[in-house]
Amino acid sequence: MKLATLARDGRAVPALFDAAGVFDLQVVLAVLPTGQRHGFGGAAAGPLSMLDLVAAGERAHALCRQVAQQPHAFAVARIAPAQVRLLAPLPRTPRNVFCLGRNYADHIQEDNLSRDKATPLPEHPQFFTKPASAIVGDGAAIRYDERVTRRLDYEVELAVVIGTGGRDIAAADAMRHVFGYTIVNDITARDLQRRHDQWFKGKALDTSCPMGPWIVSADEIADPHALAIALDVNGEPRQHASTGDMIFKIPQIIESLSAGLTLEPGDVIATGTPSGVGYAMNPRRFLTGGDVIECRIDGIGRLVNTVEAVQPDAIK
Amino acid sequence: MKLATLARDGRAVPALFDAAGVFDLQVVLAVLPTGQRHGFGGAAAGPLSMLDLVAAGERAHALCRQVAQQPHAFAVARIAPAQVRLLAPLPRTPRNVFCLGRNYADHIQEDNLSRDKATPLPEHPQFFTKPASAIVGDGAAIRYDERVTRRLDYEVELAVVIGTGGRDIAAADAMRHVFGYTIVNDITARDLQRRHDQWFKGKALDTSCPMGPWIVSADEIADPHALAIALDVNGEPRQHASTGDMIFKIPQIIESLSAGLTLEPGDVIATGTPSGVGYAMNPRRFLTGGDVIECRIDGIGRLVNTVEAVQPDAIK
Repeated sequence: MKLATLARDGRAVPALFDAAGVFDLQVVLAVLPTGQRHGFGGAAAGPLSMLDLVAAGERAHALCRQVAQQPHAFAVARIAPAQVRLLAPLPRTPRNVFCLGRNYADHIQEDNLSRDKATPLPEHPQFFTKPASAIVGDGAAIRYDERVTRRLDYEVELAVVIGTGGRDIAAADAMRHVFGYTIVNDITARDLQRRHDQWFKGKALDTSCPMGPWIVSADEIADPHALAIALDVNGEPRQHASTGDMIFKIPQIIESLSAGLTLEPGDVIATGTPSGVGYAMNPRRFLTGGDVIECRIDGIGRLVNTVEAVQPDAIK
Repeated sequence: MKLATLARDGRAVPALFDAAGVFDLQVVLAVLPTGQRHGFGGAAAGPLSMLDLVAAGERAHALCRQVAQQPHAFAVARIAPAQVRLLAPLPRTPRNVFCLGRNYADHIQEDNLSRDKATPLPEHPQFFTKPASAIVGDGAAIRYDERVTRRLDYEVELAVVIGTGGRDIAAADAMRHVFGYTIVNDITARDLQRRHDQWFKGKALDTSCPMGPWIVSADEIADPHALAIALDVNGEPRQHASTGDMIFKIPQIIESLSAGLTLEPGDVIATGTPSGVGYAMNPRRFLTGGDVIECRIDGIGRLVNTVEAVQPDAIK
């Protein structure tokens, strides 16, 4: 199943994208008999959110199957295509987005070449975070303020959405904790990344975490390490690889990250980017106002965002 | 004013610590005439939380002044000392805790000596994060699992609580965004910090962010850069310095962090640790089960936590 979060009348609404149409899952839940509504945090605590669905696991699957099998019974929940406006599937994760650096050998190689270094392949995953507040959805603008950075860059990444939390998860059990997958564009201010030594500041600017377009549930991705992954800028191919090229695969990543650190439903882990980033091109090419970035991962979809230069007048 | 969060009947309750006693601010709000209750997010959205108070700014101050001036009018909200059980003042921040590394020259020097390096002083603040889920309060146990780390260390730090959010905050305006101060013990697994290259993983273990005992409002701290800061382990002095020794002072930190990154009410920024950490001692001394760590900052108070070794049987 494909689960998106939509903007409807100022609310964030989780929706099912199915062959039979797009369905507002808050409305779906409301028309169900009372007895079938329980098991979703949202039913008690507030309007149903994507986080509730992710935490509900198999119950969310069952709900979506019911809609797909009897779309006419849920016609009232159907949304006309013209009314679909995507937000990030998880518009604000419960804590920062977990990210990996240097997880594709060819990206490490291009980094070494561009800086005349010979950094070896990492022996352990390199984790950092992006603020939950940096998340934006498909179609959203990426803010570019020349007063803050002049070296804005892109990084397409496969992102794992955790469904079942846990600590000290063994690699052999890890895939059972995965609810689904989405795309993250790990927008990075290269000058800030270097200037502040630790990567966080260069990874943390507002709107620097485009995510989407939706979450594809894990059952629809037979092998998350056999997906073509690509990124274009203004239609020009920049990154293209296979998720099979990851140095640390998803089970290892989850084992390493969860050691002594409890993962929670709705956690997002961006698994690193392949080669082709702008700063490693010769000559270097950074993002600028008006650039259109398209990220694609097979079996998930496309995530498209436009870079929007901040006009000095608009800077407060 | 001193604002703490208490555990009462399974709820997290913000409380005022005043000369006249300890007052449950949810009860205070409930006994106020309706017209005086507005202006707190909690009044509409749910029970009053510390986050509501931090976001309310001057209204929170006015509420506390009213209690302090008329304690008898709020006797029903008074909590007996025996019933006070502290949680972290912000038990779960809205996003990860922002932290600085290498912000005291003597700590950089001890690090250089311990590793036979000559790293220069940073020219820009070095930011990383700790997960919001790692926060625990005064008196809470710090988890020590030898299967995850054998080099658990302490770092006492002055922490800034943001009251008024904003982006691109100039240093000259920064102090107006500060609601108050608390203490953070930036518990660090040194082996993981090094092994994973970026510091995050070594800083992110469950219970690795003791915070408290309360928030002291900014008006009570005449100069946050003239405070004695100290840490003992089992009564033995380990760290003692002045917050005036910070390389990057709070206004610069806020200016640098908020460049292109919107700060939000309830954000916590831990401002780095002075010298005296365990890994730089000769010989090195790491934390072990039963160790009692006491952090003190003048004008704020004490934050005491005990290291609790996980028994292999208890590891699931």
